[in-house]
Amino acid sequence: MARKNNPEQTREKIISVSTTLFFEKGYEQTTMQDIVNDLGMSKGAIFHHFKSKEEILNGVMDTQSSAVEDILHQWLSEMSGRTAKEKLIGILEKNIATQEMHSLDSVLASQVKNPWFIVRTMQDAVKKSAPIFSKIMREGNEEGTITTDYPDECAEVFFLLINVWCDPNIFNCNRSKLNKRLKFLQQMMKTMGVDIVSDQLIEKMTGFIEGHCVGEWKKDVR
Amino acid sequence: MARKNNPEQTREKIISVSTTLFFEKGYEQTTMQDIVNDLGMSKGAIFHHFKSKEEILNGVMDTQSSAVEDILHQWLSEMSGRTAKEKLIGILEKNIATQEMHSLDSVLASQVKNPWFIVRTMQDAVKKSAPIFSKIMREGNEEGTITTDYPDECAEVFFLLINVWCDPNIFNCNRSKLNKRLKFLQQMMKTMGVDIVSDQLIEKMTGFIEGHCVGEWKKDVR
Repeated sequence: MARKNNPEQTREKIISVSTTLFFEKGYEQTTMQDIVNDLGMSKGAIFHHFKSKEEILNGVMDTQSSAVEDILHQWLSEMSGRTAKEKLIGILEKNIATQEMHSLDSVLASQVKNPWFIVRTMQDAVKKSAPIFSKIMREGNEEGTITTDYPDECAEVFFLLINVWCDPNIFNCNRSKLNKRLKFLQQMMKTMGVDIVSDQLIEKMTGFIEGHCVGEWKKDVR
Repeated sequence: MARKNNPEQTREKIISVSTTLFFEKGYEQTTMQDIVNDLGMSKGAIFHHFKSKEEILNGVMDTQSSAVEDILHQWLSEMSGRTAKEKLIGILEKNIATQEMHSLDSVLASQVKNPWFIVRTMQDAVKKSAPIFSKIMREGNEEGTITTDYPDECAEVFFLLINVWCDPNIFNCNRSKLNKRLKFLQQMMKTMGVDIVSDQLIEKMTGFIEGHCVGEWKKDVR
């Protein structure tokens, strides 16, 4: 097999080096020159693949979001035989337990207040993660463990609220306010026929989100 | 009264001229030099008030969001004597009828895909409009026309979903998908004890949002 770098390998190398730099220095603080230096490539070679730093961040997030999808599918294959409702609960529990789905957050933690990052995260959640959940909800409708006329909408709103509204970096809140948001989400999903948010999960999520809160965790809001 | 411009008047003039420019040319296409030219002020005088174009947009949005708050309070004073539930329904109807609350959209229509604008709109809705709604919901709880344990959360989620999730410029959708999102919102609010989204409102909102959709109104999604 030829050892020469093909375009795909070059692209992956740029993304990998940039991910490390964004993580270590922060996205804003990383310059194209930093990326050039660490890669040992010419600026022209990089620009051939990515026209701007924003395009590189785009690539970094694509890679991350594919990784999230892969993990979700792997978890689902491990849970074959379970009911749809058990699968959804299982995914949420595994997610908290491994925190792997949130590797995105830890790698790009410096970006949580970057509007471009926030919007991209929101859109990815609705476009990529939600369809996986809504597909399982449809299975649940058939077997009777879930009863919703709105599988797409339930999944989209669930991800939007968990990823955006419950992120204190985007919508300042204190611990008790976050807890109330998660309780609202629990009751909302339950009354919409998708009873997948347990008290135990809320407890764990509050701790997890608190641990991932960058900057001040507001003691009082309003 | 002195006719000399005070700092507040200068600030307002910069915002007013910039709003017109952002509307006519689009935010990205407007340069600081355009603003300087139209104002007939020195760059230094502008920079004294706003350090960047983004800060000016910030000021423009602050002004718009204060205007929205003023309108909301005016409508509420016109509806004194009605029940809390009637007030909430009344605001939603007036909003569609006058479209004044959406002056923001028409002035800054060019900005609907700008991530900074999207995040700012989201945060404004949760920080400024939602508290007005949740206060009315608490009144409704007392008089019995509304029954929710989550007035803050209901109000925040309602604005987040209406302003962001139901905006086809942010989350591509076609007419039937938008309609389904609004129906979901209706059922969600109703089961959470805040029955304020009528079929008639959904009909009008679908038409309104469709009319404000910039760019292609996707015929098919996914």
